[in-house]
Order: sequence, then C-alpha cells, then structure tokens
Amino acid sequence: MTAAVADAPARSGPSTDASALRTLLQARYGAAEAPSGILLNDTIAGLLSHRSVRAFADRPLPDGLVETLVAAAQSAPSSSNLQTFSVVAVENPATKARLAEIAGGQKHVVEAPLVLVWLADLARLEEVGRREAKPTDALAFLETLFVGIIDAALAAQNALVALESLDLGGVYLGAFRNRPVEVAELLGLPPHVLGVFGLAIGHPDPERPAQVKPRLSPRLVLHRERYDASLPQAALDHYEQALKDFQKGQGLPEVGWTSAALSRVRGAEALSGRDRMREALAALGFGLR
Amino acid sequence: MTAAVADAPARSGPSTDASALRTLLQARYGAAEAPSGILLNDTIAGLLSHRSVRAFADRPLPDGLVETLVAAAQSAPSSSNLQTFSVVAVENPATKARLAEIAGGQKHVVEAPLVLVWLADLARLEEVGRREAKPTDALAFLETLFVGIIDAALAAQNALVALESLDLGGVYLGAFRNRPVEVAELLGLPPHVLGVFGLAIGHPDPERPAQVKPRLSPRLVLHRERYDASLPQAALDHYEQALKDFQKGQGLPEVGWTSAALSRVRGAEALSGRDRMREALAALGFGLR
Repeated sequence: MTAAVADAPARSGPSTDASALRTLLQARYGAAEAPSGILLNDTIAGLLSHRSVRAFADRPLPDGLVETLVAAAQSAPSSSNLQTFSVVAVENPATKARLAEIAGGQKHVVEAPLVLVWLADLARLEEVGRREAKPTDALAFLETLFVGIIDAALAAQNALVALESLDLGGVYLGAFRNRPVEVAELLGLPPHVLGVFGLAIGHPDPERPAQVKPRLSPRLVLHRERYDASLPQAALDHYEQALKDFQKGQGLPEVGWTSAALSRVRGAEALSGRDRMREALAALGFGLR
Repeated sequence: MTAAVADAPARSGPSTDASALRTLLQARYGAAEAPSGILLNDTIAGLLSHRSVRAFADRPLPDGLVETLVAAAQSAPSSSNLQTFSVVAVENPATKARLAEIAGGQKHVVEAPLVLVWLADLARLEEVGRREAKPTDALAFLETLFVGIIDAALAAQNALVALESLDLGGVYLGAFRNRPVEVAELLGLPPHVLGVFGLAIGHPDPERPAQVKPRLSPRLVLHRERYDASLPQAALDHYEQALKDFQKGQGLPEVGWTSAALSRVRGAEALSGRDRMREALAALGFGLR
C-alpha cells in the first residue's frame, strides 16, 4: 500500500512513505510507545500529522473554502439525521476581536482570517415544529443537548480534516464556553443554540511552525473487550517525559502532563467561568431535564 | 457516481475528478442546492463520500486496523490536552450480541466484526489525582463531561475518516445511550466513564451497498457573521423532496425529514430511555454541577 500511495498524483498533504510514518508516530507517542503495523494512505497520514496551528500567515484564504468546509462538515454522520448543528463563519475583524476577548485574549483569534463558530442548534427543529404545529418537548432534555454537541463536534472535525488536507491550519477554541451568553449575544443566536467551540483557520505561518504534540500511550487509551482500570504508571511516566521533551524542543517551560492536567481540573476556580455552565445554558433556554 | 468511482485507480477512496465531485454534491444536497466552487483532493472526496454502512460482508478486518484507528483518534485535538476519552474495542460475539440488544436489537452490531465503544473518560484523571494526592473537583461539573463527550466525538470521527479511507465502512451507535448503566456494567467501566456512542465497523457488503444520504441545504446551516434565524421554507421543502427521492431510490418508505425529525423530538417517550440520562449519569458517578 505504501508504494501505491507514494505514486499517487500531485496532491496536498504529507508524504506517506514508511520513514515519514515512523517519524510521525514517534512524534505522537515518543519512540518507546510508538505502535507498529499501522495502515497507511494519504488520508491517514494527514490525520496523524495533525497539529494545532495558532500562528497564521497574512495570506488570504482560497475562494470556496467556507463552502468546502461546510460540505465536509455536513457529510459527517448526524444522530438520527436530526442535523442539530449550525455554524457561523466570522471574518469581520471587529467580531473576531470581540471573540478573542471572550476567549480570554487569544490573539490568534484575531490573526486568523476565518473563525468558524460551531453551534449545537436545537432552534431549527423547534422552529420547524412551530411551523408544523407539532410538539418538540424532547428538545428540553439534557440528552438532546448532547446530540447537538456531538453533531457539532463530528461536523467540525470533518472540517478540520478537510482544511488540513489543503495545507491550511486551525485550532479549536473551547474558551468560547467560558462565556456562552456573550457569544450568543455577539452572534445573534436565538434561544436553544449553544456555541460549542470555535475553530480559527488560516495559512500556517512558516516562520512559527507548529509541531505534532505527543499523546498518552495507546496502552492507556485503548481497551480490549473490557475496560482495564490498571493505568500502568510506567506508561504515564513515559508520557510525562515525552511531553517535557516536546516542550523543551518548542522552547516552552517543561511542565509535565500530570501537573498541567491536574491543575486544569483542580476545582471550580480552574474552569474560567465554565463552572457556571448550567446557569449559562438555562439563560440560553436549554431545559437540561 | 458509481462509474467514476469504480474507474478510480488502485488506491483507497473515491476518484477526484470534477464529474465525480458534481455527482457527490448532488447526492448530498440534491441538484438545486449543490454548492459550486468546492475545493477538492482525495481526502475531501473521501469526506464527501461518507455513507453509514449497516450491512457488512463476512470478511476479516486487516491486521493493525484497531491500532491504526486509535492512532488516528488520538491525533485529533483534545481540549487543553486533557485527553478525556478512551475506547473499548469489542470483537467478542457474546459482547456484541449484548450490545446489539442494548441498542434495541440492531443486528448490524452483531454482524460487524469490530465495535468500538467511545468513552467520555474522567476516571483516568481522577485516578492520576488520587496517585498524586491532588484535588480533581472540576471533574464533577457538567462542563467537564462536555469536554469528555467532545474529546470522544472528535477522536471517533478521525477513526471513521481513517477507516473509510481504507474502503471499510461504519455506523455510529447512539443507541448505547439508551441504557448507559448497562453498557458500563457490560464493559466494566469504572465510575465517571460514559459510553458516548459505538462505532460498528466492517467491510461493506457489496450486495447491500449504502448510499450518500442527502442533507439540509447549506443555506440552512451556514451563517455569515451572525446567525440568520429566517429558515427559508423553500429550502426546507426542497430537502423534504430530496430525502423522499433518496428513500424511494433505496426502496424505503418515503418519510420526509420534517415528520421523521419531529417524531424523534416530540417528547420524552420518543427518547428510548434517554429522557433518564440525568439519572443514568448520577448512577455512573457524574456530578453534573
């Protein structure tokens, strides 16, 4: 398969030869935990190459990009075909500046020529029900919000895969959930619509390249037949070192995963406002039954 | 489409010529709503070609597939790199049979050689906190469950894109959320782990091919700068007809989207047990603050 793919015609995306694969997997997992026997083609090489891009070049995006990303997004599966997501494409500098502020001052939100805001959208079905004079009581349940969030996430990930295949870069902006009511006001969202996260998009700045970030060993994430709760400490320790090595290579402070992640989940004060998600959802009209 | 795709050179995924693209977009949106100017490469063609496969051939899966899908999944972005998802790979026929039953008797869950169950996993961080004697109080918030669900969805979608690029097929199994406590018992999940959905995987049965399902017009899903709540009825009517045409072509009863979707959200009784999601989450130890 490798040879056949390497002979593929000129297209975007990374090279797919065996040594490039080995390099990718070692970047993702560190040398000791990199899996072998991985199946490869251009699409999979693209997925394995993902890196979050926060530094964008000052270059316009190609015509047709938004339409392409939306077509990719809508091609993702949707729970019961309810299609409970929508997306707002933001290019206006003033709106981006306000979004950056809401996200706690992330300047790449301004620098990116395009920000897509992915919405869990229960308002569309509510309006359809109103027009048809039919009840839509299930929209008031927590489960239906889950459906919207999942639909939005599957759709957004397809868009990210698509844009990376075009040699563009992006980064998700979960910090829009710090202040969901302000996002709703800014974008004119009706009740029963939640901005789940953003996606900042642009040409990666070649002067400030992003790198593949290491992840936990698959031994800690993949379970066979039943969940194995043993959580081998050696695999955690290996990851701790792999992440520090990555940070050192980036010129960043060497903070291990354990302390970074535990700091992030230590308590309500670490949630940057998201500890009030229930109140925000109530303000946005969600039932949460 | 069939002809163009069948003529594709020996590689995974569909051919990427302009006429195949037009055919794909018309299948996705109907002729009147198909967007133009879409950017194309093999990866994007693969995304646009998605169809949910529920009929599997009796053929073994390639060696290394699970490892490949997990590497793709872990390469998806993760909120604050918390990596709050895990996955259980189920191949045991008895376990699949039980999962099929939990999902309301979906026989493709048994027929598929592999079922991946995607987990929102807050137990890993809780255990790391216990070992480090650090607090993990933020795990008890609804927002942190959202993080787990989103991490799981982004990861799963990467796996789906990867498997489809290998000419395999799959379908998500949201019905695992009908009975989350039973899924947890079956798979030995510890507290603070939710089975978000499954993904049944196999070789598509060529005798029972799946087709691209039409979606709502992008006019109804994509908003520019601000949300447009007008929801043009003409676009809804067009979709109603496109979906009926699709069903007719599949030999299925012609049920419009409006009536199907509204039936699904009409009330608690349509949620197949998911109206008790809050109780299930409490039983699984989630805080939902």
